[in-house]
Amino acid sequence: MELTARQIAGLLRGVVHGDPETRVNTFAKIEEASTGSLSFLANPKYEHYIYNTGASVVLVNAGFVPCRPVQATLVEVENAYSALATLMNHVEACRPCRQGISPMAFIAETAYVEKNAYVGAFAYIGEHSTIEADCKIYPYACIGDHVRIGEGTIVYPHVTVYDNCFVGASCMLHAGAVVGADGFGFAPEGDQYSKIPQTGNVVLEDNVEVGANTTIDRAVMGSTVIRRGVKLDNLIQIGHNVEIGEDTVMAAQTGVAGSVKIGRHCMFGGQVGISGHLRVADNVRIGAQSGILGDVRESGAAMMGSPSLCAKQYLRASVIFRRLPEMHQRLENLYQEIETLKQKMEEKDPCENRGH
Amino acid sequence: MELTARQIAGLLRGVVHGDPETRVNTFAKIEEASTGSLSFLANPKYEHYIYNTGASVVLVNAGFVPCRPVQATLVEVENAYSALATLMNHVEACRPCRQGISPMAFIAETAYVEKNAYVGAFAYIGEHSTIEADCKIYPYACIGDHVRIGEGTIVYPHVTVYDNCFVGASCMLHAGAVVGADGFGFAPEGDQYSKIPQTGNVVLEDNVEVGANTTIDRAVMGSTVIRRGVKLDNLIQIGHNVEIGEDTVMAAQTGVAGSVKIGRHCMFGGQVGISGHLRVADNVRIGAQSGILGDVRESGAAMMGSPSLCAKQYLRASVIFRRLPEMHQRLENLYQEIETLKQKMEEKDPCENRGH
Amino acid sequence: MELTARQIAGLLRGVVHGDPETRVNTFAKIEEASTGSLSFLANPKYEHYIYNTGASVVLVNAGFVPCRPVQATLVEVENAYSALATLMNHVEACRPCRQGISPMAFIAETAYVEKNAYVGAFAYIGEHSTIEADCKIYPYACIGDHVRIGEGTIVYPHVTVYDNCFVGASCMLHAGAVVGADGFGFAPEGDQYSKIPQTGNVVLEDNVEVGANTTIDRAVMGSTVIRRGVKLDNLIQIGHNVEIGEDTVMAAQTGVAGSVKIGRHCMFGGQVGISGHLRVADNVRIGAQSGILGDVRESGAAMMGSPSLCAKQYLRASVIFRRLPEMHQRLENLYQEIETLKQKMEEKDPCENRGH
Repeated sequence: MELTARQIAGLLRGVVHGDPETRVNTFAKIEEASTGSLSFLANPKYEHYIYNTGASVVLVNAGFVPCRPVQATLVEVENAYSALATLMNHVEACRPCRQGISPMAFIAETAYVEKNAYVGAFAYIGEHSTIEADCKIYPYACIGDHVRIGEGTIVYPHVTVYDNCFVGASCMLHAGAVVGADGFGFAPEGDQYSKIPQTGNVVLEDNVEVGANTTIDRAVMGSTVIRRGVKLDNLIQIGHNVEIGEDTVMAAQTGVAGSVKIGRHCMFGGQVGISGHLRVADNVRIGAQSGILGDVRESGAAMMGSPSLCAKQYLRASVIFRRLPEMHQRLENLYQEIETLKQKMEEKDPCENRGH
Repeated sequence: MELTARQIAGLLRGVVHGDPETRVNTFAKIEEASTGSLSFLANPKYEHYIYNTGASVVLVNAGFVPCRPVQATLVEVENAYSALATLMNHVEACRPCRQGISPMAFIAETAYVEKNAYVGAFAYIGEHSTIEADCKIYPYACIGDHVRIGEGTIVYPHVTVYDNCFVGASCMLHAGAVVGADGFGFAPEGDQYSKIPQTGNVVLEDNVEVGANTTIDRAVMGSTVIRRGVKLDNLIQIGHNVEIGEDTVMAAQTGVAGSVKIGRHCMFGGQVGISGHLRVADNVRIGAQSGILGDVRESGAAMMGSPSLCAKQYLRASVIFRRLPEMHQRLENLYQEIETLKQKMEEKDPCENRGH
Repeated sequence: MELTARQIAGLLRGVVHGDPETRVNTFAKIEEASTGSLSFLANPKYEHYIYNTGASVVLVNAGFVPCRPVQATLVEVENAYSALATLMNHVEACRPCRQGISPMAFIAETAYVEKNAYVGAFAYIGEHSTIEADCKIYPYACIGDHVRIGEGTIVYPHVTVYDNCFVGASCMLHAGAVVGADGFGFAPEGDQYSKIPQTGNVVLEDNVEVGANTTIDRAVMGSTVIRRGVKLDNLIQIGHNVEIGEDTVMAAQTGVAGSVKIGRHCMFGGQVGISGHLRVADNVRIGAQSGILGDVRESGAAMMGSPSLCAKQYLRASVIFRRLPEMHQRLENLYQEIETLKQKMEEKDPCENRGH
């Protein structure tokens, strides 16, 4: 990345205030920026930073007028935040594109790799597998036999895709992700366990992102299915025969046990756990570290806690939890008070009897 | 896999009802099956599915008589569920066996690899290491120096076995598992930490399964020991000098801190945490997301919660937890009632005095 | 390792009691030691083990006099525990050093590798990257483009360092660690999500240790920064734009969400979770499985629980938690008692009226 303020204004249809030849080569937050950085000011709350930012160029909203002198060159755009996103995407798209099929890769004779795909050194493409157009298969990506990797998908280093799995188009599999290892299935045989063969596979639909070192197990039979647009963060565990609905996102270290069916457009916080065979409706939100032990049937429900409750109920209970010692003390006090009252009444009783 | 109903009946000593030439090439659940699938009906509760299943062949229990016409070819066997398991194992065993030692593998001069082992492209076998008969060492499996991999063990892609570790026979190490990285040991030195060398190793006995991206640390001295038949799911952390007893199974994302000793035949749910240096007896069951902070001495104990309690006690407390706000309100009400009572009594007192 | 008691005494300035030619080839705990082991007795509490240990040589504190015959050769040193550490470091330093640059490695033409570095078979060094002196780059270590690996740093197998990341001197990255994968950033676009390019990088300062399969995400802009001396255990997740202060240590499976700033010299237990954008002061201690949902501003604070409380408060509440059913019962009893009291008072009222 190497852009002048003039070029930036051209790309974003903005207006330059200051030296149009000012150059930037990186993005930075306005409060952390140094020379050569491009920054942005979208929220007026942060305006004070613009007067001594180290950034060379700052994107500002249309109509922004500094109330003091500014050293940085400003580029005035309609919306500074969305202009930034546009620019980041532009820069990303301009990055030198990895290309070519390395002679140091292993590509099975029966595999088919589209000519414009990138296959890095030490990548492995197994028998009867297909790598579609515009794929990037990085070094050490291990694509098993009978696998299909859809158009434009990026497979980063050390990803393993086991035999017979399908990955859709425009997916991104980050380093160390494992797609299709055996599900955890054993049948007791006396005191020991015998392995139940995991004969199914994993299907990732289009636009799925799988985080670094995340593991998605193959089905015992049929498929573990991750639907279009699902985003999985790092170190997540997805058990065998799980199905995750479209556009559901999960934060890091969440674990989903076998045969769970999750709806569309859900949001899971980090370190959530879901027990096996449950159903979770659409648009459900689950707080970090929650433990889901039963079906969540209501679309749009918000759950928290382990074991999880409806979020409101959990938060109310949780507030009381911290006051438990005090509550316990109050309860003991009440016991005392009642004992005192009872004694008083008993003391009175004889009086009253005498009074009769 | 490509079998006819006739062949299936032959393998399972069953009887075909329908076209014996019907072909199947995959397993599927009866409610999800499509043409070419083999399914099964074991539980009468699911009988209704058989009348419109897409499966081409269905295994049914001896004596099953459909009450309506069935399109699928049926194979009647003594026990449909165990017949299915038999068949899955048969199919698994028939899968084309990976064989041969790839010229693209790196095998140290002092390493010994049995001739019938499979060593994939880009596999690495370090100095003085031994790969026994029938092992399968997949691409990118990294076997350090002075390592022994026992007969019939499968090491999937991207597994790392550090120097001096031993893996028994018939084990399965899934992609990305790390066996023998340094334990987490540091000695404070002023405000900083100096590393305590981790001089021990890891020993996996026979029939151990290690899940994808699971990590088992080497001992500071001596061995971290995983005994015969232990099954570890994905993304589990086993600290240095831990010992896990025979046939214990642990679900995904569980963490066991250093020097913990766990008994035989325990079952751990997912995301369990166990603090360092604890002892867990045999046959102990620990619920998902539990946090074990003290020894579990009673064989067969069931534990839940964080910090964990005996399961019954935890469940009782947990039920009350959600009613805390209501309980808190009741407590406040009682305070009011008692105040009222006290006032009433005080009001009466003068009357009574007057009465005397 | 192969040392005689005489050599050990020489290295540690100790005195041999017994046969100075006794040989050891491994370290072991005194209660687990067998022939050929070197052990130590630092804590008098364990003295009884020395009388029947299998160890061949035992380090003992100056002045230790056995009260019964001892079979092992003793080496008397000033402080047995620190002498052991010295010896372990000595043995570690003597291990045959991996050297040389494998012809089976891939090193980009524009990369620079110091001559005395080790680069194993199947290692990958990308364009414009620098490997400084005394580095060890193991097989399958994947160093992207424009990366710098500082002097003496060890990168174990299957580590991925993405493009543009910096790793300081004397760091250790264990197998499967991922440095610089994309942060988890998406902008809603209707019901779907569009990816926010993650244009920043990761900076590891000197003396950082990163555990096996731990993941550290690159910043959306700027850097995710792990400062000097930080020790991260296995399977930890560090989100984008996180900053971790010097000498902070974190146990396994902890997760830190994006943009969190953590102070110096903190200690985190295992499986801790920290929500995004929080600040944690210096010297903070966080108990295992805690969930931090708000800033921890007080230096030296101790936190526990999910949601976390100050440790003392949490422990007090937690003790009451397990007594909730009993407390609930007591509350119900009180209700009864008060009802009884109220009835009694009402019964009395008429009497009193009559008494008037």
